[in-house]
Amino acid sequence: MNRPSYGSNDPIAAHATPLAESALAVIRSSGPGCIDLVAKLFSRPKALREAPGNTIVHGWIQNSRGEKVDEVLLSVFRSPRSYTGEDAVDISCHGGIATARSVLQCLLDGGFRQALPGEFTFRAFMNGKLDLTRSESVVELIEAKTDESRRHALDRLSGALESEIKAIKEELVHALAATELFLDYSEDDGVSGIAEDGLALDSENSDTIPMAAAEAAGLMPDRPRIEQALRDLETLAASYRIEKLYRDGALVAIAGRPNAGKSSLFNRLIKEERSIVTDIPGTTRDYIEAWISLEGIPVRLVDTAGLRHAEDPIEQIGVERSRSILQTADLILFLVDGKGGFQDADITLLQEYQSEALWQNRKAPPILVVWNKVDVAPLAEHGLRNALPVFAVSAKTGIGIPELAHAMKAALEENTAPAGLQQRSTVAGESQGRAAVGIASERQKALVDRAVAALREALQLADSHAPLDLIAPELRDAVEALGEITGEVSTAEILETMFSRFCVGK
Amino acid sequence: MNRPSYGSNDPIAAHATPLAESALAVIRSSGPGCIDLVAKLFSRPKALREAPGNTIVHGWIQNSRGEKVDEVLLSVFRSPRSYTGEDAVDISCHGGIATARSVLQCLLDGGFRQALPGEFTFRAFMNGKLDLTRSESVVELIEAKTDESRRHALDRLSGALESEIKAIKEELVHALAATELFLDYSEDDGVSGIAEDGLALDSENSDTIPMAAAEAAGLMPDRPRIEQALRDLETLAASYRIEKLYRDGALVAIAGRPNAGKSSLFNRLIKEERSIVTDIPGTTRDYIEAWISLEGIPVRLVDTAGLRHAEDPIEQIGVERSRSILQTADLILFLVDGKGGFQDADITLLQEYQSEALWQNRKAPPILVVWNKVDVAPLAEHGLRNALPVFAVSAKTGIGIPELAHAMKAALEENTAPAGLQQRSTVAGESQGRAAVGIASERQKALVDRAVAALREALQLADSHAPLDLIAPELRDAVEALGEITGEVSTAEILETMFSRFCVGK
Repeated sequence: MNRPSYGSNDPIAAHATPLAESALAVIRSSGPGCIDLVAKLFSRPKALREAPGNTIVHGWIQNSRGEKVDEVLLSVFRSPRSYTGEDAVDISCHGGIATARSVLQCLLDGGFRQALPGEFTFRAFMNGKLDLTRSESVVELIEAKTDESRRHALDRLSGALESEIKAIKEELVHALAATELFLDYSEDDGVSGIAEDGLALDSENSDTIPMAAAEAAGLMPDRPRIEQALRDLETLAASYRIEKLYRDGALVAIAGRPNAGKSSLFNRLIKEERSIVTDIPGTTRDYIEAWISLEGIPVRLVDTAGLRHAEDPIEQIGVERSRSILQTADLILFLVDGKGGFQDADITLLQEYQSEALWQNRKAPPILVVWNKVDVAPLAEHGLRNALPVFAVSAKTGIGIPELAHAMKAALEENTAPAGLQQRSTVAGESQGRAAVGIASERQKALVDRAVAALREALQLADSHAPLDLIAPELRDAVEALGEITGEVSTAEILETMFSRFCVGK
Repeated sequence: MNRPSYGSNDPIAAHATPLAESALAVIRSSGPGCIDLVAKLFSRPKALREAPGNTIVHGWIQNSRGEKVDEVLLSVFRSPRSYTGEDAVDISCHGGIATARSVLQCLLDGGFRQALPGEFTFRAFMNGKLDLTRSESVVELIEAKTDESRRHALDRLSGALESEIKAIKEELVHALAATELFLDYSEDDGVSGIAEDGLALDSENSDTIPMAAAEAAGLMPDRPRIEQALRDLETLAASYRIEKLYRDGALVAIAGRPNAGKSSLFNRLIKEERSIVTDIPGTTRDYIEAWISLEGIPVRLVDTAGLRHAEDPIEQIGVERSRSILQTADLILFLVDGKGGFQDADITLLQEYQSEALWQNRKAPPILVVWNKVDVAPLAEHGLRNALPVFAVSAKTGIGIPELAHAMKAALEENTAPAGLQQRSTVAGESQGRAAVGIASERQKALVDRAVAALREALQLADSHAPLDLIAPELRDAVEALGEITGEVSTAEILETMFSRFCVGK
């Protein structure tokens, strides 16, 4: 089988920086023999071969015909002191598409294989440099859209989630050991006389194995530990939606009748909240949507202006697109022209947005009603049926915009988080349960859910006085699920799926 | 005056890689005290301060509140062994917009100034690391669109142009020295008796100063040297248009009547010639144009299909755009539907393109007539007035496309280069005159032109037996122009203008 797979450890190379005009580009290489292979393409092979780890060598990359390709700096890393844990060379060449491509091509012609997405990090994991939660945080960090998203990811990269999971798991292993020990004794009781040896149990564990008492009450040993672990895991599970909000962001649609000032509000929000993509070279600005940082939440803000009430076929497409945007929106800003006040048409449109028919398979997103042009038209009495709060703003002057932004953030967090958790990310450092760090991937969430379900089942079995040999497998399953989160327990398939989400060069 | 200028040497920092999601990002810093400043933001300040040059230190960047911002590798460079010649630190952090921004912000908060465009290379020049021709080649290398463009730039980065200019200049300095010496002797002759000392001239120069002979013939000394320098400079000046073609590329428009197969030809050319921008992340593909590498020439290929013969207002804009594209095109592919053969409408359109009226202030670009669908419709007799060559192709099957591409390249080079030079870049290594390297910037071209004009003037003056003291200033001007090309002679204003063209971080 020639298809390269994550399992092999042949020398790999890839672009590590974007292919675009810039001062520098970095091409990354790793694998056994990597330094020798690069030396064959380098103007100073001896200097490179003799370079100690963590040093930099200056020279030229040359192609197989000996032609100079670029003047470069090589960062030399020697196993195990490298990102992957293998010998590795980072090639820093002149930025620019043709140059970076030519340098990578030299490596590919010179015996390197193009790295698969995430393959460098995969090797780092396989070589024990990172657990899976930290590996996943690498992708998160790269994709972080706001400074707040970055902070959340960095917590996990620092190992905070890994520690949290390991601490909970340790408690459960303890409880499981006690349970299994108890089972062993029960089974062996009276057969081999090991019961007497039981008295010789080391004092550290003796207080946690009230065997006779447990048997008497039909309770599992270490129940308080298990209950605490369950609470911690529930807190972690609940953190996911907020973490996801900060990681993936939310879609906010600006809706309302024509001339309510939708484009003005859009432009004002882009201007006041930090706009995320404006200075990325090569990004074409689409004027009807933009990513903004809404107090740290990445928000894709869409102006539906010009997309509605169309008549000709081209604009019909716009209407369809507008509808699909509304249907996936996490929050709707419904804009009313203050100069005209609430019109019947506003009420009709608002009712349409609030009606269940529009949302079919999902909960209706929160709607914030925004009274625009308050600088010239003070907020008038209105008879909104559902007593929605109304925010008076002026997109033109900026009046009321900070309050609106704050309300948008609160609505997104409230809509996202289960009751009781919405304050968590707002007040840094505060937390329910033990967990101050959250989980950030579907994979982690599914495994935490599995552990939670297993522990609940275990406690329920204990409540119904089920025998310990029915309870122990549940505890074991919970421990295993937590082991999968950090990667202590893992299968090749799970790993390939996970790392293939990475970008190439990482 | 607080405005930062290229003249200062305060510590500077900037993004050196594009702000986009990727494995790595590099933030570059340089200047006296740079290492100490970074150490204040680093988790292992002592390790960094004590690191020798050309080594790598692992740790965390922290903000002023001591919060971790990212896990990084620092490449430490100590003066004078760095790109700028100053102490410098390259910070390699996780790729991604939020992270790279946060790390740079830490530096800016920690005493660094945001670098001006090209400021790192400016400092490299000021510290004698690069001459101006090599500095300019850095930008070229970054902007190189094809591998061939990159090779041309690399020649200059390697110092080929610098050597060429310096060699020519040395010849002229020799000639100028001889002339001035002759002038000195003429002026002083018989006054102070220095003429006798003239006999003591060192033997190296004595053969090049046939003073009496020159005076007798009214010729300037060293005329053959000057004539050779002029030929070399003329060759260099002539190289500019070809170098510019490889650097900036050319605009090729595909024109013709509807249904001639313009879009098919466009797609076929994109597929067969290497397309330059396809895998740049973040680039939105505009389906009516693409950059391709036409045998090494960067070509912006525009399909005018769908832009012509429009009736409604929106398409009217397309028609205008199509016209302006044609008016700036360097080459037009005029496509004819082989199935229908040459129609009167084709002839009319072609005549329109060939008429001088369309081109007003410029020479008409070359037109290649392309007979499409040759797979089903063999090339028929045609009565084209101007006997334009006709290329029979099938955009569908690819028949004739390599021949067309070759003809396109030849037409672009012929149209670009003055007579006699068009073969130069085609046959590698061959050259007219001594110069195998070309000049690549307007700045260089203007200075070479100035030197050429001065030498022509000098020779003309000599031909008309003008006195040497009129000829010497011309030679001096030529020498000075060449000194400006490499930067031996330069003014602050010239330097600022030149380096401000660079991208930030370089």
